Amino acid sequence: MTKGPATRATILDQAVDTAYAVGLGGLSIGVLATRSEMSKSGLFAHFGSKEALQLAVLEHAREDFIARVIRPALATPRGESRVRELFTGWLRVTVDRSRGSCLFVKAATELEGWDGPVREQLVRDHRDLFETVALVFSTGISEGHFAADADPEQFAHDLHGILLAVYHARGILEDPAADNRAWRAFQALLEAARP
Amino acid sequence: MTKGPATRATILDQAVDTAYAVGLGGLSIGVLATRSEMSKSGLFAHFGSKEALQLAVLEHAREDFIARVIRPALATPRGESRVRELFTGWLRVTVDRSRGSCLFVKAATELEGWDGPVREQLVRDHRDLFETVALVFSTGISEGHFAADADPEQFAHDLHGILLAVYHARGILEDPAADNRAWRAFQALLEAARP
Repeated sequence: MTKGPATRATILDQAVDTAYAVGLGGLSIGVLATRSEMSKSGLFAHFGSKEALQLAVLEHAREDFIARVIRPALATPRGESRVRELFTGWLRVTVDRSRGSCLFVKAATELEGWDGPVREQLVRDHRDLFETVALVFSTGISEGHFAADADPEQFAHDLHGILLAVYHARGILEDPAADNRAWRAFQALLEAARP
Repeated sequence: MTKGPATRATILDQAVDTAYAVGLGGLSIGVLATRSEMSKSGLFAHFGSKEALQLAVLEHAREDFIARVIRPALATPRGESRVRELFTGWLRVTVDRSRGSCLFVKAATELEGWDGPVREQLVRDHRDLFETVALVFSTGISEGHFAADADPEQFAHDLHGILLAVYHARGILEDPAADNRAWRAFQALLEAARP
């Protein structure tokens, strides 16, 4: 007997949870079937292959990040306040999850040296993210909040480092000062960018 | 027939390679035996348990890092030049390895939420590292190269973020500008610390 139908969104939520637990590379239709108690044939009907499942999980996580972090930032006035909203949202979304570290960060260390569409998608997602951060920062240059010669790409890279450090400090070190340190690093980055 | 005797150092080199390939959590005596073509009984005689093997790998990687990064820094004059030597060594050692990302970073995302001696050792190693970086930075305060109110712990945290970002940019993104970006971030960190 197969279980009743489940919506794609419900399945994907389970799939994302499974990816956090076993790693994106370890996520297969068989593993998801076992952990979610959904039928393997039903999951095959939804996804067709392990790779398609992994790509669907990346897409689901990406859309969640865009909805919770990118869109609220873009709805905030251009310039420094938009940059602050972006950082605030990014820091918050990783706490909400309570699944430990970012799925993309985990996947990035895991998929190093891999080839194929899942890795390519992960690289594209990171590039899109960096470009979005750089674009948000550059509204601060055109609004006169940051120096004309400040480098938006360098800012995106540095901000990413701050987030990686806070994931790490929260995750393995369980450092209660992690978020405070991230805020201080962020403030210093803004200070350095002022005209 | 068992293979001939191998020195502990040779075995540990193989074990570190295996840990890079399968993750520290995936490293067991059985897996190491298969990948290294050494006898399982011989490996058991050396390590006794999976956990002891994982701890030995962490110790081996730690000693390597101390020899290649920490000691050369401590042999450099106190102050900014020592901080620069530390950063230079840290950046270089991760390239020498050509195994992708740092074993400690990989293990940190992998061992989140685990309990037991391997995780505890990893946390201790990270704390030791942060304290050493803070101590190296504070020689720059006492030498007058950095401001008296600069925060050595914050510096250690920020420097760690720069290294995490460069691992990531080199690893998954294969960004040729990764090291250059890390250097720019490091210079900005020093600038912000000046008296």
